[in-house]
Amino acid sequence: MKQSFLFTKTRRDAPTDEVSRNAKLLIRGGFIHKEMAGVYSYLPLGLRVLNKVVGIIREEMNALGGQEVYLSALQDREVWEKTGRWDERAVDSWFKTELKNGAEAGLAFTHEEPITAMMRGHISSYKDLPKYPYQFQVKFRNETRARSGLIRGREFLMKDLYSFSRNETEHQAFYEKIKQAYHTIFARIGLGEKTVLTFASGGSFSKYSHEFQTLCAAGEDTIHLCDKCRIAVNSEIISEHTACPQCGNEKLTQEKAVEVGNIFTLGTKFSDALNLKYRNEVGKETSVFMGSYGIGPGRAMGVAVELFADEKGIVWPKSIAPFAVHLISLASSTKVKKEADALYEKLQKEDIEVLYDDRDARAGEKFADADLIGIPLRAVVSDKTPVGKVEIKARLTVVGQERTSDSARIISHAELLKMVSGK
Amino acid sequence: MKQSFLFTKTRRDAPTDEVSRNAKLLIRGGFIHKEMAGVYSYLPLGLRVLNKVVGIIREEMNALGGQEVYLSALQDREVWEKTGRWDERAVDSWFKTELKNGAEAGLAFTHEEPITAMMRGHISSYKDLPKYPYQFQVKFRNETRARSGLIRGREFLMKDLYSFSRNETEHQAFYEKIKQAYHTIFARIGLGEKTVLTFASGGSFSKYSHEFQTLCAAGEDTIHLCDKCRIAVNSEIISEHTACPQCGNEKLTQEKAVEVGNIFTLGTKFSDALNLKYRNEVGKETSVFMGSYGIGPGRAMGVAVELFADEKGIVWPKSIAPFAVHLISLASSTKVKKEADALYEKLQKEDIEVLYDDRDARAGEKFADADLIGIPLRAVVSDKTPVGKVEIKARLTVVGQERTSDSARIISHAELLKMVSGK
Repeated sequence: MKQSFLFTKTRRDAPTDEVSRNAKLLIRGGFIHKEMAGVYSYLPLGLRVLNKVVGIIREEMNALGGQEVYLSALQDREVWEKTGRWDERAVDSWFKTELKNGAEAGLAFTHEEPITAMMRGHISSYKDLPKYPYQFQVKFRNETRARSGLIRGREFLMKDLYSFSRNETEHQAFYEKIKQAYHTIFARIGLGEKTVLTFASGGSFSKYSHEFQTLCAAGEDTIHLCDKCRIAVNSEIISEHTACPQCGNEKLTQEKAVEVGNIFTLGTKFSDALNLKYRNEVGKETSVFMGSYGIGPGRAMGVAVELFADEKGIVWPKSIAPFAVHLISLASSTKVKKEADALYEKLQKEDIEVLYDDRDARAGEKFADADLIGIPLRAVVSDKTPVGKVEIKARLTVVGQERTSDSARIISHAELLKMVSGK
Repeated sequence: MKQSFLFTKTRRDAPTDEVSRNAKLLIRGGFIHKEMAGVYSYLPLGLRVLNKVVGIIREEMNALGGQEVYLSALQDREVWEKTGRWDERAVDSWFKTELKNGAEAGLAFTHEEPITAMMRGHISSYKDLPKYPYQFQVKFRNETRARSGLIRGREFLMKDLYSFSRNETEHQAFYEKIKQAYHTIFARIGLGEKTVLTFASGGSFSKYSHEFQTLCAAGEDTIHLCDKCRIAVNSEIISEHTACPQCGNEKLTQEKAVEVGNIFTLGTKFSDALNLKYRNEVGKETSVFMGSYGIGPGRAMGVAVELFADEKGIVWPKSIAPFAVHLISLASSTKVKKEADALYEKLQKEDIEVLYDDRDARAGEKFADADLIGIPLRAVVSDKTPVGKVEIKARLTVVGQERTSDSARIISHAELLKMVSGK
């Protein structure tokens, strides 16, 4: 994409009421726009990043046998009354609204109730199980405070998968598989090394549930980390479980973290309340055994900004960067400009995602924007680069917990193509 | 996809409170689930169709220079007060809700106000224009009645593009281009021959706006069609404009129709109210000239069902069918079953979208389901089909306004592959 075509502009300052680092940088870079506290719109660059995160999650959910659906935001009061969660004393984060006939409707903050009710039409026998519907869907939560940018939204995209199994054994096998899939997802997104499995309170059907917490100074959660196992206990249950649940280590260290995912054994709580039953192998009516599994793609994007940004701007992990290459033309002559144009066309032709800064602007402005936007690889064509060559420089690269920045070097167009196409 | 894997079941009867043909068939086929009147969830088959429609629209919007964004549903009262549209006497279809601090928020029924406000951060000079952001986003409209299935929803997906131009001339050129793009889109979706450009009331900045109306008995609109030009006048303005605006023909025929798209010249109504200005070529502050352009992908899907379904079920146009082929195994022996499996694998390998009915069910049930689901091509492997061959039969095919149904015939696997891959 040509930068002269992109409608968004970078800006020097974030809105004064914005306190979180991720929102400040994402707004300055033109990735998102703040509509109100905790409510953001995605602009072209931001939507590209969000779609990359979504794409990675989708692949992993499909690989597990997930089937994508899209449930409504508007919710029928009746369904939620069956589990007691319509009541605002039980759930204090509802946004509610009113139909023309005066009936109340809610905006989904999660989807256990409607999906359980919906599955009644599709599950009747043990042969229909297990099943794993999932969706990417906007949730609404009436948060009292929303000052963490994409990390805590009043309206935010969520991937939620629900598992419907015959029994606890079948459920548990899937629960372990999704645990692994979540590790894979966070590794692919670039958050793997900072993200730890965290034990949280269970419920009637399991001792624990699990969160995936990314260690991050901007986190609103506190977790208690076992340095040996790299697993943690959340603050909710630390008073009861003061040691590492895996190795028994009692030296846990407190860390700030962001909950980027959670997995939960629901058991038959929802299927009992909403009458989701199946006939088992001997014809006996049995409640379906359920689980739920969430990831916030926008939140993961916000955390990536918090973790990897430097004083100059955002540094995207390769897998979720809006573009693979930021091609910058500093041409003062038509000849050099043509050379940059030709390289852009070549990259486009090879399906390489390239943002091409073809604007009529100063070199300093272009470099500052490139640093702010944070595309992993910068490629410059200028009066100084020899014909057929380009000067490349990596944006800070995250290697383990160290960061290295390649110094600039000159390579041929062919080498650049090879480098970014991975061929 | 194997049908044994698909979690949805077809059903003999639609919910008794469902009156529209499209909702009845889509629910029976397992494409959608009714949450409440005018509020539907998309199940895997339905989401596949919806995504096909979205994909076609996206391609055409990108070809016009559109840039995809995703704006929030939750709306800030303040922005809407500037245009007077917060007031429920001006807009009676708001869903409103309340933040924890008592402030009111709305759920977007459209996005002119927030996108105009947002663009203030990105437009300042004539060099920044024209620009065409668009989105696929869920709209909320508090309809009094919602009995037409996907044709009139309280919550529904919409593609809305907004044009920001320097002046009326530049706007008008784009307006004509999008008119053509809409014809292309409806043709590609399979609604082209039934969809007519319809003149509607304009506003302060243009004599007319335009609707794209699909002739359909289930339509809630009445249009006045000129048979010569195949353009129409909507009932809103027919009293003032009794003749065809193109050829002057006064013999217009009344037809029921569904509004599947609309395009509108907004002029400077929103940019004036929300202070979206740019400096023109001579440095003068000028209001941006705007237009808005909507299509409801779910509504288009509902109309396709209304138009093409027969007494046996849905008949999808090829371009938006959930799968290209419905492969049905009627094998009674392991040998034939293996043959069907092998053909399925072969189709999958060629990236052909195939729904494979591998279920343990009677032939009659499988055929009835195939007719209900409406995939354009049915391919049967049975004890009767010779080795390496398959029996194919087209679901009713829409040719012009006539429908033809190929009778079944036997072809080789290679021929089938060639037929569906289009190679």
